Amino acid sequence: MRNICMKVSYDGTNYSGFQTQPDGNAIQDYLEKAIDMLTGEKVKIHASGRTDAGVHAYGQVFHFHTTSKIPVERWCMALNSRLPRDIMVTEAREVPLDFHSRRSAKRKTYRYTINANQFPDLFRRNTELHHPGKLNVEAMSEGLKYLIGTHDFTSFASRHSTKPSHIRTVYDVHIERDQSMCRPGTRDQGLIHLYITGNGFLQHMVRIIAGTLLEVGKGRKKPEDIASILEAKDRMKAGPTAESKGLILWNVEYENFN
Amino acid sequence: MRNICMKVSYDGTNYSGFQTQPDGNAIQDYLEKAIDMLTGEKVKIHASGRTDAGVHAYGQVFHFHTTSKIPVERWCMALNSRLPRDIMVTEAREVPLDFHSRRSAKRKTYRYTINANQFPDLFRRNTELHHPGKLNVEAMSEGLKYLIGTHDFTSFASRHSTKPSHIRTVYDVHIERDQSMCRPGTRDQGLIHLYITGNGFLQHMVRIIAGTLLEVGKGRKKPEDIASILEAKDRMKAGPTAESKGLILWNVEYENFN
Repeated sequence: MRNICMKVSYDGTNYSGFQTQPDGNAIQDYLEKAIDMLTGEKVKIHASGRTDAGVHAYGQVFHFHTTSKIPVERWCMALNSRLPRDIMVTEAREVPLDFHSRRSAKRKTYRYTINANQFPDLFRRNTELHHPGKLNVEAMSEGLKYLIGTHDFTSFASRHSTKPSHIRTVYDVHIERDQSMCRPGTRDQGLIHLYITGNGFLQHMVRIIAGTLLEVGKGRKKPEDIASILEAKDRMKAGPTAESKGLILWNVEYENFN
Repeated sequence: MRNICMKVSYDGTNYSGFQTQPDGNAIQDYLEKAIDMLTGEKVKIHASGRTDAGVHAYGQVFHFHTTSKIPVERWCMALNSRLPRDIMVTEAREVPLDFHSRRSAKRKTYRYTINANQFPDLFRRNTELHHPGKLNVEAMSEGLKYLIGTHDFTSFASRHSTKPSHIRTVYDVHIERDQSMCRPGTRDQGLIHLYITGNGFLQHMVRIIAGTLLEVGKGRKKPEDIASILEAKDRMKAGPTAESKGLILWNVEYENFN
């Protein structure tokens, strides 16, 4: 028995999320089908975490056990030729049998993208939230700082979260701006990429953080409100859940495997 | 009678090119339909030039004559709400009646994008040519220089070109590299954006230039071969026509209107 670990990118637009669905239209379903076509084995894959419908991944990680003898360097090409064009594996390694994509993960990074130009970018319209209104990006950056550290993130979790503990650690959170496509003489404010790295994330956590941050950017909330929202442990105090299409699972890090 | 000039972006993936088609699936058809829905007038729009099926535009320009009294600042929103999501007008102006999008154009810029990473970028797969093999980008840049100036571009034009003269002037041509998505420790070479600005372009000209440049990058042709290919005035001497999806009409410039 071998344990194969892979990195996968996907455009989540046309899928019902990562986790297997009765309609077979989840990313997991297509990956398992491709592995079955290749090896003749009905394996169950385990990812670092689920992503919701419409959420994308640049560096999602999953593993599975197999008796197949296909050398690791062949897996990517072999699977990609059996996958839809918007799902693509980019790395394969053989890992110790006790490696687990979710349990062994040390840090995860998500990116949420807001396009604050007057017009959406046609070519990225499925991977950005369009918000043409004025945003105070400095206030947004300031508000973000309150998230760093170990907190109870109940205010930033879906009410349907079933996790026994809502305590998580955020290691880093920052904004990167891309103003390369701003048209001179307009109110274009460029792309705002919000990167957040932590030891784990609750359901909708990054999207609620993005939605709350937008309120700060609009001036409806103050940067320091983020601290009191955290303290309240009350989902009602935070902003709305931002649309899934702006979210991408960027990277997952492991102790001895990156 | 008024002359309205607009800028339009489109993702050409799902269309049969700019110019009106019997099946009604050209960009022009959708724009004219939207104007008809808005004004009740069956206008004919004139663009700065056609783009082929699968070719995109960031800053295509077109104009049309209308008796509609809608103020210019309302046109963009009004048309965009009547256009498919992958066609978007981003600017509208009233121009002198003798302004013509094609005849008045002074300079046009196209961009051709080659992704030279090991894997295609899922999120840009419709707007880049994927070429994972080793490319000598310095040789490509050197080869490009021979195109600058006024030349007979017969070698770089479709055999079906019906233009009486193949003499065009290339003002600027350069490569911009984007290595932000290269994964360390891999043979990823990043994105290669080829920008070319001229007073006009022949059918397939930029795509044949891109295809020939790829031959230079692969070492099958030398940079200085570009000079002798130009001189030969023979389409057979140049490289293949590169795929349409990597091409985008970037910008069109006018004397008193940019």
